[in-house]
Amino acid sequence: MTSTTSSRVDSATPQESAAMRRAFELARRGPAVDPNPRVGCVLLAPDGQTIGEGWHRGAGTPHAEVAALADAAAQRHDTRGATAVVTLEPCNHTGRTGPCSEALLAAGVARVVVSVSDPNPLAAGGAARLRAEGVDVLAGVLADEGRQVLGAWVHAVERDRPFVTLKIASSLDGRIAAADGSSRWITGPVARQHAHDLRGEVDAIAVGTGTALADDPSLTARSADGSLHEHQPVRVVVGLRDLPADAALRGPGGELVHVRTHDPHAVLAELASRGVRHVLVEGGPTLATAFLRAGVVDEVHAYVAPVLLGAGRSAVDDLGVATIDDAVRLVTRSVLPLGPDVLVVATPAAEAAAQTAARPSTDQEP
Amino acid sequence: MTSTTSSRVDSATPQESAAMRRAFELARRGPAVDPNPRVGCVLLAPDGQTIGEGWHRGAGTPHAEVAALADAAAQRHDTRGATAVVTLEPCNHTGRTGPCSEALLAAGVARVVVSVSDPNPLAAGGAARLRAEGVDVLAGVLADEGRQVLGAWVHAVERDRPFVTLKIASSLDGRIAAADGSSRWITGPVARQHAHDLRGEVDAIAVGTGTALADDPSLTARSADGSLHEHQPVRVVVGLRDLPADAALRGPGGELVHVRTHDPHAVLAELASRGVRHVLVEGGPTLATAFLRAGVVDEVHAYVAPVLLGAGRSAVDDLGVATIDDAVRLVTRSVLPLGPDVLVVATPAAEAAAQTAARPSTDQEP
Repeated sequence: MTSTTSSRVDSATPQESAAMRRAFELARRGPAVDPNPRVGCVLLAPDGQTIGEGWHRGAGTPHAEVAALADAAAQRHDTRGATAVVTLEPCNHTGRTGPCSEALLAAGVARVVVSVSDPNPLAAGGAARLRAEGVDVLAGVLADEGRQVLGAWVHAVERDRPFVTLKIASSLDGRIAAADGSSRWITGPVARQHAHDLRGEVDAIAVGTGTALADDPSLTARSADGSLHEHQPVRVVVGLRDLPADAALRGPGGELVHVRTHDPHAVLAELASRGVRHVLVEGGPTLATAFLRAGVVDEVHAYVAPVLLGAGRSAVDDLGVATIDDAVRLVTRSVLPLGPDVLVVATPAAEAAAQTAARPSTDQEP
Repeated sequence: MTSTTSSRVDSATPQESAAMRRAFELARRGPAVDPNPRVGCVLLAPDGQTIGEGWHRGAGTPHAEVAALADAAAQRHDTRGATAVVTLEPCNHTGRTGPCSEALLAAGVARVVVSVSDPNPLAAGGAARLRAEGVDVLAGVLADEGRQVLGAWVHAVERDRPFVTLKIASSLDGRIAAADGSSRWITGPVARQHAHDLRGEVDAIAVGTGTALADDPSLTARSADGSLHEHQPVRVVVGLRDLPADAALRGPGGELVHVRTHDPHAVLAELASRGVRHVLVEGGPTLATAFLRAGVVDEVHAYVAPVLLGAGRSAVDDLGVATIDDAVRLVTRSVLPLGPDVLVVATPAAEAAAQTAARPSTDQEP
């Protein structure tokens, strides 16, 4: 038997893992909706004691690492030889603030423990810069949880477009409205409030002009008492037709953006240029179908109500699926009862089809 | 303040309640599928000790009370002055066995504690007969659980027709098949096995001739390994068209009954005459719609799969619902994740509509 030794610690110590979990908590204090990611940082002295904590409070404020260094300085702690435990790789570019890599070097930090490497080509390179100066950098610690904390931001940066959540609210037989087009209400108040809370967590909501003209929605995020949430998503209308001057979409709420195209890719490019990381596609079936056909739906939120309609518009139009083998198969991520209704959250995954390929020799009904 | 006293105990003692729970356990040992109800009985001596237990093992075997008296006799216990705790009111008619009321009187039982009064006019009257002979009879003890134990039987007797469960298996957008009619498989193996297990618990399965001819199902209850369950439900085909000589429905499985009508009431009358207490309506949309329109669906089992089809037959056809206020609203009884799929069990309830009448002044989308 042989053994190898190294002066470097190439996995996180229990203290560092605990500090990373603390850093996740700190990161979650940041704004849910912001162009910048939510990041937390904990500074550990060489003896393992915490000497500083920080998190990013949103665009235009100090990054988490700088906030943690400031916290340590305010307590007159010596940061030389310290370990910085940070949820996202320190940036290496000068944006509204200076590079965090330089701040860490200036503070004499000896080791940096990172959860998620920065997928943003503009900001990445912090780890390499630190290593070049002799700092010990360990990345990928609790990376799954780190990506969860980053949420839509990490997906948006990786895809170079906003993360797209498609919302469907339908009856048990898949109808979003009755034969005459009426749809107030298929789902119950608990599901509706849940959907409003989701609006408060996204950057933008998109509907087609058909829905905008037929339903005159306001697309605001409201509390149960009808009051507007503090954060209001950008309201996006997709399509060529004009909106009337008195449309509810022009009333109180988020900024109104009319994207005069039918191309989901063009919509997403326009939203990306406005700093939108997460867009909720709310309706109607034409827009939902266009996004599904373009392959740019990252998550489906399907609210299913215990209602039967037997007629009326379906949630999704022709997807080009001719036979069952071509079905758009999703992977269920969660099932959440909401009063009488159920929310199914699912994500597309081509590989899911393989799981259903094995066909036992039983009857066809489910 | 005044108080009333009575020589009779007009509510169950803790010992009697405990004995009733035991009687429910015993009842559940009976066959799940049988023309007769599942009933359990516990005999308590005047000092509260259990001196006999029995349950009904199915049509043609002794009723629970008689089985419990036999158990007491086998142990040479004296039943004079005893209390009989029984989940269903003792019968008062002579069918394949003699009336239980007479057996209890002959045994010298002094008190009878009943959960559910017999809704069957043919068999009822046992409590009155016992009271007429001076026996103290208390009914309605833990009646909700008592009705649960009786299951479809009590509903069927009360309605004078089989209990009807409608099964739907659909995509998230409410489709039961793709555009070309293919439907193997929308739901996954866990949901399919669940549906097979339900088949093993009902007396009959019904499909329309359209489904029988298009899909050639065998309508058997099978285990995951493909083997047939011991109990096979009656296979019912509804409609005027003939089945081919080589139809899978003529193969191994339950009895095949072809009911040449389109009237759900006529179907249920035919099944009732054959002793069917619980029928599972499996498809297709035409049959489901006919049963829904006739108002004879008692329970909906909706298996919803994380699949989008965008086209293809919907689970339900025209229900005569023109506007959302006329929607068929159900009350959700349970939500059960089954692998990637979800089973929503719901029951119709006209009064449920009132709950949704209050409309908060928020957006229309859920």
